[in-house]
Amino acid sequence: MLILESLSVGQYGFIGNVFSFGLAVMASTTLFLWLMKSSVAPAYQMAITISGLVTAIAAYHYLQIMLSWDSAVVVTSGQVVPTGEGFNRAYRYVDWLLTVPLLLIELILVMKLSGSETMSKSVKLGGAAALMIILGYPGEVSESMETRTIFWVLSMIPFLYIVKELVVGLKSSIANQPDSVKGLINKAAWLVVLSWAFYPIVYLLPLLGVTGGNAIVMVEAGYTIADIVAKAVFGILIFTIAVRKSKADAQMQNA
Amino acid sequence: MLILESLSVGQYGFIGNVFSFGLAVMASTTLFLWLMKSSVAPAYQMAITISGLVTAIAAYHYLQIMLSWDSAVVVTSGQVVPTGEGFNRAYRYVDWLLTVPLLLIELILVMKLSGSETMSKSVKLGGAAALMIILGYPGEVSESMETRTIFWVLSMIPFLYIVKELVVGLKSSIANQPDSVKGLINKAAWLVVLSWAFYPIVYLLPLLGVTGGNAIVMVEAGYTIADIVAKAVFGILIFTIAVRKSKADAQMQNA
Repeated sequence: MLILESLSVGQYGFIGNVFSFGLAVMASTTLFLWLMKSSVAPAYQMAITISGLVTAIAAYHYLQIMLSWDSAVVVTSGQVVPTGEGFNRAYRYVDWLLTVPLLLIELILVMKLSGSETMSKSVKLGGAAALMIILGYPGEVSESMETRTIFWVLSMIPFLYIVKELVVGLKSSIANQPDSVKGLINKAAWLVVLSWAFYPIVYLLPLLGVTGGNAIVMVEAGYTIADIVAKAVFGILIFTIAVRKSKADAQMQNA
Repeated sequence: MLILESLSVGQYGFIGNVFSFGLAVMASTTLFLWLMKSSVAPAYQMAITISGLVTAIAAYHYLQIMLSWDSAVVVTSGQVVPTGEGFNRAYRYVDWLLTVPLLLIELILVMKLSGSETMSKSVKLGGAAALMIILGYPGEVSESMETRTIFWVLSMIPFLYIVKELVVGLKSSIANQPDSVKGLINKAAWLVVLSWAFYPIVYLLPLLGVTGGNAIVMVEAGYTIADIVAKAVFGILIFTIAVRKSKADAQMQNA
């Protein structure tokens, strides 16, 4: 398992800075999205509000992660000494349980499908996303490598279902989008698939025998970069789509 | 009674994560409701403002509960050791005293009844809700099982009155609502009845001899889930009703 004692003082400080970076990126993306919300047509404002909500929830959890990281360790005579409070890894899961379903709902909302299609796709994809996180958690906190493997496999089932839905299931809906955003929506769907694929790899690192301070740096920096791509970069992409669709809708009305 | 020493370190941490989850859900629901307020017709904006107020008050109290939980215990060599500060259970009651009457007022406001009906129903239902919380409190903090039982019974009287008012008293008002929201308002009334029914059950757990760490997990996770359903899920339902009624009103005006 990942043991805090194996960190050098430099590595401990580096990870703390990574968390602070994550907090700053998430909070500033939130403010950007909410301040710019009124520049898109009313039909897309809920997508932008929820994009900002996702990064706001992530900002809160990066703050909690940073505080937990601070109090888990004291640096004494050049050594990293755990205080016994432990580093609360669960904050990431609490975050994902809320934000991962909302990320898929963002994408569905910005497409402006019919009311019933929006509802059914949100329930199916959002539900699968929540199930994926819930199934991942018991493996993440278990000391047993067998348990970790079993829950990794279980969690991959809803993950692969989401990938299938994004790549195949949305095809006809994407075909009906205005030309100016078809490419961007396709990119947003692939951004989800590729950035999310990173998480099951990080999850497996302890199984692959990666240990020590470098492993903790890889896991924490890796999850943070993946979070930034999946939430902040994705949110800006959703905003760009909403701006272009607002223009396309206005042109349609004037024609 | 529920004794903190009986918690394992894992259970203590789990409950802390549940409180943090509650805070994140309440705060993000508040932001969603207030940011989306302008997308409903002016007649429904007070209902949305109050829905957000309820989750904002709850977010504040979950923060206080989380901080009290943190300072009630230290984890020393793998053991949960109370600091003597105690875990402040009263925050839940202070929260309910404010939010429970407001929840009923949300429902009344979104129905857009006549001014006098809105006032009389708000006073009757809001007053009964406040009385229910006040009568519950002496039993909650008492060590005596007799006192607990007496105040449980007293508190159930206004509760049953509210249930009767929601199920029978609102029937004619619901019948006058637009078709697009009749079902949803009925659902909202039942969501109140069912989610609120959970609280008197949790209240009785110590009387039923449920003790130990598992009992604390059940009580705190149970109250938190009930709060999320009764406040956040209910608030989103009120928002959906307000959006549909805004559309129905606009169609009426254009017809």
